Amino acid sequence: MKLVRYGKPGKEKPGLIDAAGKLRDLSQVIADVTPEQLSDKALAKLAKLNTDKLPLVKGKPRMGCPVANVGKFLAIGLNYADHAAEAGMPIPKEPIVFTKAISCIQGPNDDVMLPKGSVKSDWEVELGIVIGTEARHVSQKAAFDYVAGYCLINDVSEREYQLERGGTWDKGKGCDTFGPIGPWLVTRDEVANPQKLNMWLDLNGVRMQTGNTKTMIFGVAKIVSYLSQFVTLKPGDVICTGTPPGVGMGVKKDGKPAPVYLKRGDVMTLGIEGLGEQHQKVVAFKA
Amino acid sequence: MKLVRYGKPGKEKPGLIDAAGKLRDLSQVIADVTPEQLSDKALAKLAKLNTDKLPLVKGKPRMGCPVANVGKFLAIGLNYADHAAEAGMPIPKEPIVFTKAISCIQGPNDDVMLPKGSVKSDWEVELGIVIGTEARHVSQKAAFDYVAGYCLINDVSEREYQLERGGTWDKGKGCDTFGPIGPWLVTRDEVANPQKLNMWLDLNGVRMQTGNTKTMIFGVAKIVSYLSQFVTLKPGDVICTGTPPGVGMGVKKDGKPAPVYLKRGDVMTLGIEGLGEQHQKVVAFKA
Repeated sequence: MKLVRYGKPGKEKPGLIDAAGKLRDLSQVIADVTPEQLSDKALAKLAKLNTDKLPLVKGKPRMGCPVANVGKFLAIGLNYADHAAEAGMPIPKEPIVFTKAISCIQGPNDDVMLPKGSVKSDWEVELGIVIGTEARHVSQKAAFDYVAGYCLINDVSEREYQLERGGTWDKGKGCDTFGPIGPWLVTRDEVANPQKLNMWLDLNGVRMQTGNTKTMIFGVAKIVSYLSQFVTLKPGDVICTGTPPGVGMGVKKDGKPAPVYLKRGDVMTLGIEGLGEQHQKVVAFKA
Repeated sequence: MKLVRYGKPGKEKPGLIDAAGKLRDLSQVIADVTPEQLSDKALAKLAKLNTDKLPLVKGKPRMGCPVANVGKFLAIGLNYADHAAEAGMPIPKEPIVFTKAISCIQGPNDDVMLPKGSVKSDWEVELGIVIGTEARHVSQKAAFDYVAGYCLINDVSEREYQLERGGTWDKGKGCDTFGPIGPWLVTRDEVANPQKLNMWLDLNGVRMQTGNTKTMIFGVAKIVSYLSQFVTLKPGDVICTGTPPGVGMGVKKDGKPAPVYLKRGDVMTLGIEGLGEQHQKVVAFKA
């Protein structure tokens, strides 16, 4: 099942994408895609709907983040061996955890705004995990039982804020508009193997990132299990799982660092196999 | 005004502490102390109430976190020069920012549970800032306009998770029960000078921390202004502002490190001038 939220920011309605790829309205069935709707039981109920009978949505509405009321927006750093290498950092012995501010969450195709004075804003295509059931100290073996599904995330990052402003990554990860999520929340039954998904990101039509979730250092089960040792994961929590090589910070020319950062007018297009695509225009800071 | 939330976890009702120190029920006036109730306008409306006419609450109910639906729980590290010294870390050039998981928030007197296998759990009495109005790129001069008020926080921390598990503090800061907040949200009009408040913490009746917010490296106005450059602060966001000397990690005996960490049965009592007191029993991990 592919759940979505569509409509104006803050006024999104719940919907789903049917087998023919059409957007159907769910607002007569559920009020919103809230954390409460992400349990196995609640999702099973939605899966039984006869989608043909749900109202078709006309036109091409804006898509919002497919989960309402995200509680925690956690993230794993340097989780692809090749990306760690391009960032010039050692492969972590255990997952690096940081936090994105929930105030940065937005729809998958909303504009990404450069922070005030930013000169090092960068992109990161990532597999997102959406928690469906409260998870505390869960084993790797049981971890998938706590996952509602997956989504595409652009973990937009300001490298100066992240790396040159006093030792904590959180500063460069939660700027407004830095958390495009969606278009879909794809329930876990539709993702046969989350460790075998192609992913990519284009900047202005030029392929920058190419990867596959099979090269993750710590996979989905490990990440969910690991995080659940430190914090209780709640339904509606979203976890970014790291990015493959090809970020702007890592670009080289003739073997020498030649980083490329986002500028006004740039367009990012990104996708993960089975999880849809995002398309963001980069705009200047607005007060 | 001193706003509170009282009653069973998850079922708290709004209330206030009147001029005589008595708990009065507010649930016929507002549904809860939600972020929407923290604007200057909404608080001014509550301030006009004739508190004598509000129902007195009988008995001594449990106190909850005085703010419902906290969005972000941000924190500043090493923000007292003496504490940085005891932690053996240099005085930061700009604020160190980390994030506590909102799932760790609890009432001021609820038990603090040791994480599974924890041997380095520690205490930190801190001044908490509660945001009342959305703040983006605000100046230090204007910063207080965005503050609803202040509260007492115990920024409970697991030092092994924080410092020995891969470089990000967030791992040791958000364990369940590590965020006792309250008892009161004291509106900013009642705190004449937030940089002149005595604070203290006792472990089993022995004074461990003694401090005053005047020795903060970065004060309240600077913190609000600084954070608002990186993330949009929303009503209901809570910010921990750092702790004075006297944490368990820093205890010395005969000039040598002799850290003291929390163990089952310990009792923490802490307070900040004008913001009330907290009292927590330390209990073993429960699955």
